[in-house]
Amino acid sequence: MWLKFSKMHGLGNDFMVIDLVTQSGHIRPDRVRELADRNFGIGFDQLLIVEQPGKADVDFRYRIFNADGSEVENCGNGARCFARFVYDQHLTGKRDIRVETASGIMELHLTDDRQVVVDMGKPVLEPAQIPFIADGFAPEYQVNIEGIGEVALGAVSMGNPHAVLRVEDIDNAPVEQWGPLIEPHRLFPRKVNVGFMQVLDEHHIRLRVYERGAGETLACGTGACAAVVSGQLRGWLKPGVTVSLPGGDLFIEWDGQSNVHMTGPAVTVFEGRINI
Amino acid sequence: MWLKFSKMHGLGNDFMVIDLVTQSGHIRPDRVRELADRNFGIGFDQLLIVEQPGKADVDFRYRIFNADGSEVENCGNGARCFARFVYDQHLTGKRDIRVETASGIMELHLTDDRQVVVDMGKPVLEPAQIPFIADGFAPEYQVNIEGIGEVALGAVSMGNPHAVLRVEDIDNAPVEQWGPLIEPHRLFPRKVNVGFMQVLDEHHIRLRVYERGAGETLACGTGACAAVVSGQLRGWLKPGVTVSLPGGDLFIEWDGQSNVHMTGPAVTVFEGRINI
Repeated sequence: MWLKFSKMHGLGNDFMVIDLVTQSGHIRPDRVRELADRNFGIGFDQLLIVEQPGKADVDFRYRIFNADGSEVENCGNGARCFARFVYDQHLTGKRDIRVETASGIMELHLTDDRQVVVDMGKPVLEPAQIPFIADGFAPEYQVNIEGIGEVALGAVSMGNPHAVLRVEDIDNAPVEQWGPLIEPHRLFPRKVNVGFMQVLDEHHIRLRVYERGAGETLACGTGACAAVVSGQLRGWLKPGVTVSLPGGDLFIEWDGQSNVHMTGPAVTVFEGRINI
Repeated sequence: MWLKFSKMHGLGNDFMVIDLVTQSGHIRPDRVRELADRNFGIGFDQLLIVEQPGKADVDFRYRIFNADGSEVENCGNGARCFARFVYDQHLTGKRDIRVETASGIMELHLTDDRQVVVDMGKPVLEPAQIPFIADGFAPEYQVNIEGIGEVALGAVSMGNPHAVLRVEDIDNAPVEQWGPLIEPHRLFPRKVNVGFMQVLDEHHIRLRVYERGAGETLACGTGACAAVVSGQLRGWLKPGVTVSLPGGDLFIEWDGQSNVHMTGPAVTVFEGRINI
C-alpha cells in the first residue's frame, strides 16, 4: 500500500506528516521506529498523523508519535507543521483551525506571511501544579543544586515543567553540564526541562533548552513560552518577545494573565510516497 | 523547479538519487549541503546524480557528492544503489550495466534476487602503490604504532588504502581507540582506513571499519573487499566470503588473482519530489 507523506520542519524539529483523512492506513509502532531511522528510513523526530475529528466542533484530530513508536501529547513545532500541512494540502480552506490533540483542543491561525500562530494556553505558575516543591509562588526561586551550588531560577509549566535560568553569554552557557544536574533534581518530582536565557533587550532573548530525556534540542516551543513568561514575571521583558533558538526565531506574546501565543514558521521540505 | 528523487540505502549508507537523464537541473554545492541536513533537508550521506554518458560504450555516467558538497570518486554502496535505481526507474532494461564514474568505468550486474554485483577491480598489493612504506610485499606486516605497540596488519588498496587487523571478538574490538592512532600513521603517507576482522570460519567474517576522515561507519564496501583479500592472502579464508558489517551482509568473491566482486543489497526507501 502506497502512502503519500510530507516531510516538514519547524525550526529544525522535523516531522513526517501523513494525511489519513483522504488516505487510509495504519502504521504499527515497530514500523514507526523503522521509518524514523535516518539512514534506513525517512528520518524524523516525530510522526504526525492527521485524522478526521471525533467531535463536531473541531476541524481535525492529530496524533504525534515519537521515533520510538510511543504516542506523545503535543508539540508546538508539530502544531505549526500540522496547520501548514492541512492548508497547503487543501484539506481545509480555513485559516483558523481547531484541532483535537491527545492533550486537548488547540487553536491555530495561519498568518498572511506564512507563519502559524499557536495558542499555547495559560502558563501554570502554582508550584504544586508544575510540579515544583516550594512554599507558594515566587517569580524567582533560589535552589541549591548538587554539583553547581545556589542557582536562581523561574519555574513555569506550559503543560510540561520548565526551569528558566538567566545567563550572560548563551554561547558559553553550561547547557550540557548543568542540564543533567538540574533535570532530575528532587524539587521537580516529574523532572524538568532546563532553559538558559540571555536577555538582549526587553523584546529579544536568546535561548537554549535542555529537554527532559532528550538533551539539548534545536527549538523547544514550550521552552520559549516558559522563558518569556518567566522573564516578564522577573521584570526583564515586556510583552511581545522574539526568542532566538539554535534552530531559528519564535515570537511569543503574553499579556501577563491569559493565554500565551507562539508565532513561528513551518516549512515543507519535500513530498514523498512510501510503500507501507 | 520540481525534481523527482529517490531515497535509497546500501546497508545503511544512504543516498539521495536524482535522474538527470529524463529531468534537467543543476544543484549547487551550497544546496547540496542544505539537502544533506537531516533535520532541515532530506538527509543523506551522499547525493548520487545519474547522467547521460559522455562516451559511446557506456550506459550512464554517475557522480557522487558528499554532504559537504564536494565531489567524490566512487563508493560500492552507491554503485549498487545506482544500478537498482536505473533499472527500477526504467532508465534501462539491461541487467549488465557499464557506467562512467569519476574513478573510471564500472561494471554492475543485477541478480535475479534483487542483489547487485559490483566489479571492484583488482586489489593493489604493491606497497608503493597503496601507498604504504615497506620493503616489498608481504601478506602481513608487523608495525609499531605509538600508543598501541606491535600490530600485525595486512595492507591492501581497493582504490583507497586499507590496513586490516584480526581480532578475536569484534564486539569489543578497539575500533574507536586504535582507529585514530593507525589512520594517520607515517607508514601510510595518504592515511589509511582501518578494518577490524573477526574470522568466524573460512567463508564468513565479521568486520568493523574506521574510515579515513569519517570514523566508524555502518558498511564500508572497499573495506569488506580489502579484509577478504587480506584474509585469503594470510591463509585464513577461502574464495567466497560473507562479510557481516554493522549495517548488514556483503558477499565478496576473489579468485586470488583477478578482480574482486562484491554482491549486496540496494534498497529504495521512498520516492519524493522537491522544489529545487
